[in-house]
Amino acid sequence: MEKGKLNRITDVEGVLVGHKTICSDSHQTGVTFIRTAEDVFHQKLACGCSILNGFGKTTGLPQIMELGTLESYICLTNTLNVGVVQQALVDIMVKENEDLTSVNVVVGECNDGYLNSIRDCVVTKEDVYDAYRDCKKEFELGSVGAGRGMSCFEMSGGIGSSSRIFEIDGNTYTLGVLVLSNFGLREQYLLDKVEGNQLPLEQEKGSIMMIIATDAPLSDRQLRRVCNRMPVGLALTGSHMGNGSGDIAIAFSTANRFGDEKIHTLKQINDNKINVVFDAAIESCKEAVHVSLIENEEVTGQSGHVRKCLNQVKIS
Amino acid sequence: MEKGKLNRITDVEGVLVGHKTICSDSHQTGVTFIRTAEDVFHQKLACGCSILNGFGKTTGLPQIMELGTLESYICLTNTLNVGVVQQALVDIMVKENEDLTSVNVVVGECNDGYLNSIRDCVVTKEDVYDAYRDCKKEFELGSVGAGRGMSCFEMSGGIGSSSRIFEIDGNTYTLGVLVLSNFGLREQYLLDKVEGNQLPLEQEKGSIMMIIATDAPLSDRQLRRVCNRMPVGLALTGSHMGNGSGDIAIAFSTANRFGDEKIHTLKQINDNKINVVFDAAIESCKEAVHVSLIENEEVTGQSGHVRKCLNQVKIS
Amino acid sequence: MEKGKLNRITDVEGVLVGHKTICSDSHQTGVTFIRTAEDVFHQKLACGCSILNGFGKTTGLPQIMELGTLESYICLTNTLNVGVVQQALVDIMVKENEDLTSVNVVVGECNDGYLNSIRDCVVTKEDVYDAYRDCKKEFELGSVGAGRGMSCFEMSGGIGSSSRIFEIDGNTYTLGVLVLSNFGLREQYLLDKVEGNQLPLEQEKGSIMMIIATDAPLSDRQLRRVCNRMPVGLALTGSHMGNGSGDIAIAFSTANRFGDEKIHTLKQINDNKINVVFDAAIESCKEAVHVSLIENEEVTGQSGHVRKCLNQVKIS
Amino acid sequence: MEKGKLNRITDVEGVLVGHKTICSDSHQTGVTFIRTAEDVFHQKLACGCSILNGFGKTTGLPQIMELGTLESYICLTNTLNVGVVQQALVDIMVKENEDLTSVNVVVGECNDGYLNSIRDCVVTKEDVYDAYRDCKKEFELGSVGAGRGMSCFEMSGGIGSSSRIFEIDGNTYTLGVLVLSNFGLREQYLLDKVEGNQLPLEQEKGSIMMIIATDAPLSDRQLRRVCNRMPVGLALTGSHMGNGSGDIAIAFSTANRFGDEKIHTLKQINDNKINVVFDAAIESCKEAVHVSLIENEEVTGQSGHVRKCLNQVKIS
Repeated sequence: MEKGKLNRITDVEGVLVGHKTICSDSHQTGVTFIRTAEDVFHQKLACGCSILNGFGKTTGLPQIMELGTLESYICLTNTLNVGVVQQALVDIMVKENEDLTSVNVVVGECNDGYLNSIRDCVVTKEDVYDAYRDCKKEFELGSVGAGRGMSCFEMSGGIGSSSRIFEIDGNTYTLGVLVLSNFGLREQYLLDKVEGNQLPLEQEKGSIMMIIATDAPLSDRQLRRVCNRMPVGLALTGSHMGNGSGDIAIAFSTANRFGDEKIHTLKQINDNKINVVFDAAIESCKEAVHVSLIENEEVTGQSGHVRKCLNQVKIS
Repeated sequence: MEKGKLNRITDVEGVLVGHKTICSDSHQTGVTFIRTAEDVFHQKLACGCSILNGFGKTTGLPQIMELGTLESYICLTNTLNVGVVQQALVDIMVKENEDLTSVNVVVGECNDGYLNSIRDCVVTKEDVYDAYRDCKKEFELGSVGAGRGMSCFEMSGGIGSSSRIFEIDGNTYTLGVLVLSNFGLREQYLLDKVEGNQLPLEQEKGSIMMIIATDAPLSDRQLRRVCNRMPVGLALTGSHMGNGSGDIAIAFSTANRFGDEKIHTLKQINDNKINVVFDAAIESCKEAVHVSLIENEEVTGQSGHVRKCLNQVKIS
Repeated sequence: MEKGKLNRITDVEGVLVGHKTICSDSHQTGVTFIRTAEDVFHQKLACGCSILNGFGKTTGLPQIMELGTLESYICLTNTLNVGVVQQALVDIMVKENEDLTSVNVVVGECNDGYLNSIRDCVVTKEDVYDAYRDCKKEFELGSVGAGRGMSCFEMSGGIGSSSRIFEIDGNTYTLGVLVLSNFGLREQYLLDKVEGNQLPLEQEKGSIMMIIATDAPLSDRQLRRVCNRMPVGLALTGSHMGNGSGDIAIAFSTANRFGDEKIHTLKQINDNKINVVFDAAIESCKEAVHVSLIENEEVTGQSGHVRKCLNQVKIS
Repeated sequence: MEKGKLNRITDVEGVLVGHKTICSDSHQTGVTFIRTAEDVFHQKLACGCSILNGFGKTTGLPQIMELGTLESYICLTNTLNVGVVQQALVDIMVKENEDLTSVNVVVGECNDGYLNSIRDCVVTKEDVYDAYRDCKKEFELGSVGAGRGMSCFEMSGGIGSSSRIFEIDGNTYTLGVLVLSNFGLREQYLLDKVEGNQLPLEQEKGSIMMIIATDAPLSDRQLRRVCNRMPVGLALTGSHMGNGSGDIAIAFSTANRFGDEKIHTLKQINDNKINVVFDAAIESCKEAVHVSLIENEEVTGQSGHVRKCLNQVKIS
């Protein structure tokens, strides 16, 4: 399938991504900010999600399931800083929307405790505001933002992204995926040949967050179906969806938006034609994980812990 | 059915509750802290939950569903302060547990925006620590803690609690419920005769959080079944589970705890004998809502908004 | 709220109901057939469902949840005859649709084993065809069709129905409910005062099937939300949703139909306006249970078991 | 990982499998019968399931989810014959258990309409009894029983099975998988190199049923987690979990059985140790699909439709 121009989630019109990266001797962490759409609070997006492995702390999922809409931006960070990031995201939503007295914000996380002294909870509200201001189309990949301290297949992981273009009934649509990759043992990795196997130092305590954006007309139910295909993309990279890996997918469509009309009219692809969307999502997910590894560097973190990057261990 | 000694959730051994109440001209809000068990992080509790109406922002539910355990305390607060309360609760868990590098904390909420200038997000981490230190068995009821600014059937609502004692196979067990009540139109109220009907000022934007504790041996699946009966208790008070009311129930059992054994042994009631537990939960839920109304006072909040209490409008 | 003309589910345009009742000394059972819509296989209906208590054997629910559509008629019968009824319903769908090579049929059930020698599985395919041919708007209520041998609050239960009319944004809509009632102990009954309490002869092994039809524009997600309010209607009759009672609700809308267009356009009420639909469903459900009791007669079944009807035990 | 002695699901003690195969010019179909355990009705098995793609007609899943147990045998057949097979399975359960007045039977299906004139619904109750009597440990594989008319990656598919042996805390356990494979386009197939690609004649209308048995001590929740890893196994064979493919997994453990004790005691592996079970299930699932292809033959069915077998198109 054809890739989007930037091969990123931002190929979907209206989506922007920014980072705030925190690096010090013992702190390798940060925040990634996904601006999902202009005026998302008043023109909510069709949204579905799937908790593929619920060993995770993502906020905001129950309301997405109930109402089928996304009414906020999405932030990613480390496991123990979800609270402060959520509060900062509420602040931003309050500031942007004078009439807001309730909002369902979405904050996802992975555990970067191998490289980051996670117990210090060093992320601040200012970090979130910085990531918000950094939002753009051509955003950085790899060990940046929330991805800074993440490990994928025991290599340096983090932010990956990819996109695909496809056609339905004569119309062209785009689907993009952004992942925060933080799972897997090196011996399970399938996409490249890598040097030796590394003995696992610890039980996998990973997670992968998958954010999927599209401008194809899908309902909340169909977006959930897209999320439910993400294990296929993950499996092809080598994931076994281990116990400790919270695997959570959230998908939204910019084609169906919900304002204060009394009756909403929406469009949805006939499910008989949806396979091309599934394929676009599977391919983008698989490539996004690869991107998170290949667009990366060696990272040294707390207690002298080091994650080599894919390019260092790849056997050409 | 027989009530527990205190007729509170704290009749279940090990459960303690504390509040921090915030009252000023325009801020009527707070935090309620539920200490679920001693060393809950290392001796996790069997736990189930049910998202009866998902229009809510409670955190921590996906992991409860996946792992069937509760590994933290539970806090309640207003809708827009979930973030800061979550971060404070993480801090407390980090401080109490030297080996903790990941924890799934549970923060529930209702929207007190009628009485509280909710957009100011006035709750602080210190407030959470105060509520934590206030924990005790004979805790306050009504417009206190997270319940301070809540409205139930357009009267002053908030914290209610009740408990029941029952027998299975010759053993005596206790089940207790704590609610944060914030739902309903006055004309729907069923438990007492009340003065006139009040025209609804706004669309219901309520919610009810229901925390259920028991020392009966139940599995996570059975605890979820208990949660699924809460609509019966709510309906008998007059609830219609309106669109805007996030109705979320979380139930835990102190009889099945999970440490680091490689194989866990647990006990569960034969489902054929579980009706008595359902009945205890339904009765406690219904009475807890009533308690949240009857153990209460008039509250004046932002913009001169007033909620009368049940005793003021009850027709004897 | 205003009732529909017939106060039955058939007040929704296109819905027809028929019965085949089987009465002999030891067999009190039957089939109820709900013709959901003309050409339902090619013009599928928007549909949602909720498994409120899954102790039941209803077929067809997984596909409704996945695809959000209903593509068949619905049959009700006794627990041990679901198979033969399902096969007969497939036969009917095959005969009506020349291009059909796969179909998801829905068969619900309750256990009439108190009055009916259920182990004999006496229902035949011919009985289903008879019920199909009997379909009409002004159908019989009470101990007829699948309802023949059912017990509700230890009285003769079975088929009940009710409907409500409501307005959204200037348009008038109808919602109707049909129940197969077979749950509850007499001492729990709330809607009328009844004579004495009867000692339960056996553990409740009931169930209630609730079929909800409407011409209001709702999506599959919203129809599931309607189903999730049914416990409120049940609770107000006295149900405790006991362990053995499989409580299953299925709701469909005739306003959104799905043919073979590549892109479907559908309409859905703003969720902020949905409370009137919830109320219509709650009221109809509650009244339908009452109708199943009041439009009834004494039934004598196997082993001399007798269920008195409500009119016999009601205290005026 | 080490394979079981027979490399079949029957390596789990107590599990037996039988087939009835129907072959004629236009009918290529049948029944596969899985005897799950001795006296399964009175000593129910811990059971979990997952509806990975709900475009399927499997019966019995709601009660498994609610009660966490399996109380019957499992049958597999073609999509339009689920009814008659269900009724026959009820008959068998009734005959075997004198006290049975309610039973939740499980019948899974795939659509063999490419090779089989499925609209004729040729399976009879006698066929089910024949399959029941055929049950044994060393059962046939490939285009037999329910697998007779199935197509996998546009080759002849059907019944596959595999098993793995693993150790937890010094104890040895077995996990086995049986699949009914009926999904995928040839160009997606990953496990062998195959001749050319075949143009798809029709939209995929497949399905895969996955039955997982183990003697490891798992709870219903954990068995559901095992089911949720099946997409990994499927993805590694080439599945994209297409729209039309109903992908349903059911897992049971013979280590936790539930009789009429008032309190049940059960054992469950610490979730921190569960990855080895996931891996056994993933490997067995992947190999079972391969077995369904490799242990197979060319099949000619209705309208002259032919499915070649893997050995015919494999490039050595």
